Amino acid sequence: MPIYRIAIGTPRDASHPDAIRAALAEFFSMLIFVFAGEGSGMAFSKIPKLSYCFILILDKCLSLISLNLVHNSPYLSLILFIFTRQVKMVISKTEFVDFFVCFLDKLTDNGSTTPAGLVAASLAHAFALFVAVSVGANISGGHVNPAVTFGAFIGGNITLLRGILYWIAQLLGSVVACLLLKFATGGLETSAFSLSSGVSPWNAVVFEIVMTFGLVYTVYATAVDPKKGNVGTIAPIAIGFIVGANILAGGAFDGASMNPAVSFGPAVVSWTWTHQWVYWLGPLIGAAIAAIVYDNIFIGNNAHEPLPNNDF
Amino acid sequence: MPIYRIAIGTPRDASHPDAIRAALAEFFSMLIFVFAGEGSGMAFSKIPKLSYCFILILDKCLSLISLNLVHNSPYLSLILFIFTRQVKMVISKTEFVDFFVCFLDKLTDNGSTTPAGLVAASLAHAFALFVAVSVGANISGGHVNPAVTFGAFIGGNITLLRGILYWIAQLLGSVVACLLLKFATGGLETSAFSLSSGVSPWNAVVFEIVMTFGLVYTVYATAVDPKKGNVGTIAPIAIGFIVGANILAGGAFDGASMNPAVSFGPAVVSWTWTHQWVYWLGPLIGAAIAAIVYDNIFIGNNAHEPLPNNDF
Amino acid sequence: MPIYRIAIGTPRDASHPDAIRAALAEFFSMLIFVFAGEGSGMAFSKIPKLSYCFILILDKCLSLISLNLVHNSPYLSLILFIFTRQVKMVISKTEFVDFFVCFLDKLTDNGSTTPAGLVAASLAHAFALFVAVSVGANISGGHVNPAVTFGAFIGGNITLLRGILYWIAQLLGSVVACLLLKFATGGLETSAFSLSSGVSPWNAVVFEIVMTFGLVYTVYATAVDPKKGNVGTIAPIAIGFIVGANILAGGAFDGASMNPAVSFGPAVVSWTWTHQWVYWLGPLIGAAIAAIVYDNIFIGNNAHEPLPNNDF
Amino acid sequence: MPIYRIAIGTPRDASHPDAIRAALAEFFSMLIFVFAGEGSGMAFSKIPKLSYCFILILDKCLSLISLNLVHNSPYLSLILFIFTRQVKMVISKTEFVDFFVCFLDKLTDNGSTTPAGLVAASLAHAFALFVAVSVGANISGGHVNPAVTFGAFIGGNITLLRGILYWIAQLLGSVVACLLLKFATGGLETSAFSLSSGVSPWNAVVFEIVMTFGLVYTVYATAVDPKKGNVGTIAPIAIGFIVGANILAGGAFDGASMNPAVSFGPAVVSWTWTHQWVYWLGPLIGAAIAAIVYDNIFIGNNAHEPLPNNDF
Repeated sequence: MPIYRIAIGTPRDASHPDAIRAALAEFFSMLIFVFAGEGSGMAFSKIPKLSYCFILILDKCLSLISLNLVHNSPYLSLILFIFTRQVKMVISKTEFVDFFVCFLDKLTDNGSTTPAGLVAASLAHAFALFVAVSVGANISGGHVNPAVTFGAFIGGNITLLRGILYWIAQLLGSVVACLLLKFATGGLETSAFSLSSGVSPWNAVVFEIVMTFGLVYTVYATAVDPKKGNVGTIAPIAIGFIVGANILAGGAFDGASMNPAVSFGPAVVSWTWTHQWVYWLGPLIGAAIAAIVYDNIFIGNNAHEPLPNNDF
Repeated sequence: MPIYRIAIGTPRDASHPDAIRAALAEFFSMLIFVFAGEGSGMAFSKIPKLSYCFILILDKCLSLISLNLVHNSPYLSLILFIFTRQVKMVISKTEFVDFFVCFLDKLTDNGSTTPAGLVAASLAHAFALFVAVSVGANISGGHVNPAVTFGAFIGGNITLLRGILYWIAQLLGSVVACLLLKFATGGLETSAFSLSSGVSPWNAVVFEIVMTFGLVYTVYATAVDPKKGNVGTIAPIAIGFIVGANILAGGAFDGASMNPAVSFGPAVVSWTWTHQWVYWLGPLIGAAIAAIVYDNIFIGNNAHEPLPNNDF
Repeated sequence: MPIYRIAIGTPRDASHPDAIRAALAEFFSMLIFVFAGEGSGMAFSKIPKLSYCFILILDKCLSLISLNLVHNSPYLSLILFIFTRQVKMVISKTEFVDFFVCFLDKLTDNGSTTPAGLVAASLAHAFALFVAVSVGANISGGHVNPAVTFGAFIGGNITLLRGILYWIAQLLGSVVACLLLKFATGGLETSAFSLSSGVSPWNAVVFEIVMTFGLVYTVYATAVDPKKGNVGTIAPIAIGFIVGANILAGGAFDGASMNPAVSFGPAVVSWTWTHQWVYWLGPLIGAAIAAIVYDNIFIGNNAHEPLPNNDF
Repeated sequence: MPIYRIAIGTPRDASHPDAIRAALAEFFSMLIFVFAGEGSGMAFSKIPKLSYCFILILDKCLSLISLNLVHNSPYLSLILFIFTRQVKMVISKTEFVDFFVCFLDKLTDNGSTTPAGLVAASLAHAFALFVAVSVGANISGGHVNPAVTFGAFIGGNITLLRGILYWIAQLLGSVVACLLLKFATGGLETSAFSLSSGVSPWNAVVFEIVMTFGLVYTVYATAVDPKKGNVGTIAPIAIGFIVGANILAGGAFDGASMNPAVSFGPAVVSWTWTHQWVYWLGPLIGAAIAAIVYDNIFIGNNAHEPLPNNDF
């Protein structure tokens, strides 16, 4: 029933000062969100690699042993000397060092695939998205996500032209946030989203579809639905926290973007486009399904009345 | 006093479009909740085992040493050669490797029994359940839990037939979420709930009873109680967060389900039914106690007036 | 000005059904809070000690080496044999093992003094207290803390007799929660609060005073103050989260109780009374200061009007 | 358009009892916030250094080996004896120990630059600031930050004289909190904010500008904007959580202060003024930009009406 609600809008509609103002609000919300979210990812890559530190220790240690050799019995010194030479030769083999570096970096909990790293990423995105939605809620609706804007368009809640304006503002906000991060960190790489080993692009598409379905379903139920009532007060928290929860599930597999703009900014600044399509196709499909499902089943029937004996 | 409120309902009642719509809302809420909750558990098992990585290093290291042997004094080389053979023989013994693997996996913080792992599980469930309750609140009441539905039935807030409809929707939602996870992760195991070593099934039943009592007591106090007032606005947050808090307490002992549907989905998909009864018996008893206690003591007395000089 | 508000109350007042009901609400709130909070502390001590695991590995490893000795050259075997004997002798010295155990347990992040452990304790208490305050808010005011009840008494918001009723319910709730935990975990110790090394009892008293001041000041500003307005809706969250924040600060020094009942329950069940007075004196002083300060400065002046040009 | 709104105020205005009361509220809010935030940082430096523990083990271990030497064959004992002497000599070299200490402290996850440490710092600040804003909201507006007061002044929401009163109260609150922490911890150092290696002062200024822009933009959108509506209820949560999110991004680079008072207190108590100007210049610039942008674009146009077909 809602399909007739899809609207193109008029150019005048999209150039109205309020539309410009709404697009600006999307820009600033996205900037705030991506700066914290992407920045938290870069913070962990900033932590000095333990492996590097360890190799320095080992080298130092072996040199000191060698220096002491002359003060001891020649024969036993020789054993130690040969042993240290052996170790040094082994260390100089690249293959071994690669394994070892991987081992030590795992040990020190740095990556985003350890529980602590995933918790940090989850909280940074949950908190920042909650805030970004809150600050934009009264001006632009607080989409802060091209997939949400697409879902709103599918459900007939925004015109096509204004939606395109939103998309431009959102993508610009993400790129500017990444440029500011690159500058503020003295040139650190803004790492683009990527798939973990063993995760195929189509696996990732399914992940993004289901997770974005959950996000846009939440947007509809807590913010769009006219029957939302009290739940509307905590809508921005719900929208931020479902992203936080999904990152704990999907973050170790495909980065859990649920948001084409979030993966677009780092891709532009680091100019890495591998699998970028995954982070557009999945979220847009998931958003469309959520919009159609929610709009038809739960909003569509205007005659709907709350169940009388079901009071919570 | 509320026992007469228990109602069977009529078949027409349960086949009303609103009842179907409510069941669909339960289905989607449960799907969103279990996808994030169970997914976060699977994310940590996905992290490549450090132990495997370490054994590769050791093997590589020993091979390189062997290769270098010929370039040194034959006698000392022999010592090293024999030493490495010894180590290799030890490593090939299964018993030793089992111990070692256990040791290394502990060291790298992967399991759900370390503080960081428990925090991640707690946040994933707290955030996702809060959202699942929010999105269902206005349509189905946002039970998202067969035990809550049972508690609502005991307190006379839902009819038997509609409760069965909810149960079916909830269990289906959990199974579909686990199937989607299995597909999206390329076939990873959806790990069923299990008891930690040293925890008997009856210990776990007590855990589930007390934790589910807390959950359903919270549902009654913040969402069902007609005197809930302002607290009703934050009810979904409270319901999600008590589950998060209880997971930090019970998660290391029995997985802290508090929800038969949450343990049913993974059990179906991985077809593991050990101790499944624990995760039904405990929550249902806890929910019934909470419903009876809250309904009789705090709702039953309709003449209740707030205490005059107790204003917070 | 508020001192005249302190009231004894009449026995009839304290035996009124509403007073009994309020005390029952305090009992259940405290039970839910302590079960999750203390349970999360016990969960980490449950995690099998890595040190134990490691010593088993070492022993296994040395035995296997010994077994293999006969198959190799006698002389070199002898060297290895003597080395393993040396290691075994060293390991059997208690002093060494104590150091080693301490080292390994640190390494595996178990205690409550690592960042991940403190985060888990902080979230368990923040989430559970928020819920416990929410569920009690409309019935008893949701004190869930003898210090808060004392602060309410000092500010004239509860009579002496009813306050004593609350204290009894709160202390009982904490003890019952600890007994349930002891039973559900198959007899694990409910660890009492204690001071870290280098923290004197008087240091801890200062900690408890300042932290409980913050907590009771928050209770007054968000729940008691008649001018609280919108902030009242999120009062339970604020009350739970200030405890969570303070645990991250004080947890590593004195356990950060801020609540005599929370330290009373584990002390009764484990019958450990060392420094128990610290967890009564500090919180009660802090609560009294907060009640007097807030009541006199911010509530006392009834003629207070919001500043006209200061709208946030 | 808002520039004419900037106001000096009259001395009588700033000495009004309500102004004094508001300044006192700022003092207590800041005290509660800094005590938890700075205290959580000090908690992790309190954790006994693993490196110290390990060196004790090693020493003990070597001594025990030496003692056992006489009971074995003299020749092989000699080898072991010389080896242990070698290790001891190496350990006594300062350079090596420094590396090793750094390595072990990394391994045990103590610093604030590991994911778990950053999560703890983020939650302590997010929770405590949320509470500090809540408790001050109805009395002083809950600035709890000289940069927010400056932003409010730029937007014409507070007079110059009253703003100075707020600044004095905020800075005093921070200093008193740090003094209390120093006393309660038995004299631990209140660590001042500092830049990580590789971060130039100007990089940090950019970080502080962008992060404080996000914070003050949030304050304007959720608390100052007359069109804030429902979002106003959760404003203190949003204000606290954007700081939490930004700490996860900027904490590893420059400590993520966003608040001159937060960096002023520890600097006074530890008397460390390196880079102090960074934590004043950045936040004040960021706050001014946010105030001007939000006030002009989103509040300035009083004729603004919500977009008709954009209902979320």
